[in-house]
Amino acid sequence: MSDAEMLFRIASLNAAYAAAIDDDRLEEWPDFFIDDCLYKITSAENLRDGNEAGIVYADSRAMLADRVLALRRANIYERQAYRHIIGASRLTASDGTDISAETPFLVVRTMRDGQLDLFVAGRYRDRLRDGAGKLRFVERVVICDSSHFDTLVAIPL
Amino acid sequence: MSDAEMLFRIASLNAAYAAAIDDDRLEEWPDFFIDDCLYKITSAENLRDGNEAGIVYADSRAMLADRVLALRRANIYERQAYRHIIGASRLTASDGTDISAETPFLVVRTMRDGQLDLFVAGRYRDRLRDGAGKLRFVERVVICDSSHFDTLVAIPL
Amino acid sequence: MSDAEMLFRIASLNAAYAAAIDDDRLEEWPDFFIDDCLYKITSAENLRDGNEAGIVYADSRAMLADRVLALRRANIYERQAYRHIIGASRLTASDGTDISAETPFLVVRTMRDGQLDLFVAGRYRDRLRDGAGKLRFVERVVICDSSHFDTLVAIPL
Repeated sequence: MSDAEMLFRIASLNAAYAAAIDDDRLEEWPDFFIDDCLYKITSAENLRDGNEAGIVYADSRAMLADRVLALRRANIYERQAYRHIIGASRLTASDGTDISAETPFLVVRTMRDGQLDLFVAGRYRDRLRDGAGKLRFVERVVICDSSHFDTLVAIPL
Repeated sequence: MSDAEMLFRIASLNAAYAAAIDDDRLEEWPDFFIDDCLYKITSAENLRDGNEAGIVYADSRAMLADRVLALRRANIYERQAYRHIIGASRLTASDGTDISAETPFLVVRTMRDGQLDLFVAGRYRDRLRDGAGKLRFVERVVICDSSHFDTLVAIPL
Repeated sequence: MSDAEMLFRIASLNAAYAAAIDDDRLEEWPDFFIDDCLYKITSAENLRDGNEAGIVYADSRAMLADRVLALRRANIYERQAYRHIIGASRLTASDGTDISAETPFLVVRTMRDGQLDLFVAGRYRDRLRDGAGKLRFVERVVICDSSHFDTLVAIPL
């Protein structure tokens, strides 16, 4: 597969991923990952400091599904809307099995009173695998430009 | 035509559409639609409530052209600049004649004093048709994340 | 080469360009330009007024490299992070040697205290040339929507 085709497939994956979150179809979110995945939200500063922990950490699809259940119980989504704007990806590595890519993103939040704000900017550092014609995340590390995570913890990015 | 080719054509259409508005070439805007089109600005909340009316509603290209004339008379554009940032589209349906797609967008406004603000975020829900090698909107429903439309009504999104 | 292939290559170039800046690999930035390049930051208003000077002006790759050195000495990058979100390009001309394109962009800034703001919105007006399989900028004119450039001067856009 050419780089152009792979980048096209990654762009489509990211568009579907963002729409599932922004359309509040959160139950579909874990399906973008393989069973034995790693999903982490961290900051550029944490990575620079060698702090690998992350603010949010899940190392299986089951944990992502649990997270969605918890979010539904907390009813976080009622009062605001999120909108992901995802830039073009760069392929950073390929080892025959997996493809690595980085992708800039921005999430804008609209409050119920109509106020919009910049919620978070950063980049995805992904490892992707093709399985039965479907591309899935082996690993998605969400690297936020900010290290301040007050409310971020609740939200899938 | 493959999905990749269609998505490429839609991305090009959206880039041209956004540039016509942001470069203040509004007179070109109606040409992105078929004669017998539907253009509507509404909110996610309106759609959820089954309110189909919309804040802005035009059901022909002629109405869009009238709208541009009205905007020119009102001289709305003098004091601020708009910048559309449009994400990757998802194909949602195809019936042989028309293609349906959804696309996230963000519009940033720059005031004359240099102040920037987030003007509107949302998604386009489009139906597109190919006519003589040119893709046009049969229907463009602009679904804003916010339901507060103070000044929005005036601006093509 | 088809328009689709060219637009794909431009999108990849812009993704690499943005990542070099946002990842603070500024030393790589001049390599996106030919030796005898033109790089300029200006505003839509300046262009309308026929003011061709620009706020930032460099007419060789060596000047861009000097600029990076100056930025490193000034240590501008310590306290904030930048994130480019770059839209789809439009091809505007082609003369056999060079390709012209325009591309909307948005830069979001994250301060050390976690505050995000809209730093600048605008469009790139580019002339590009293929040399030994690598696309480079012959000319990149950064046309900002705002004419207020307080801190802008320091930052590669």
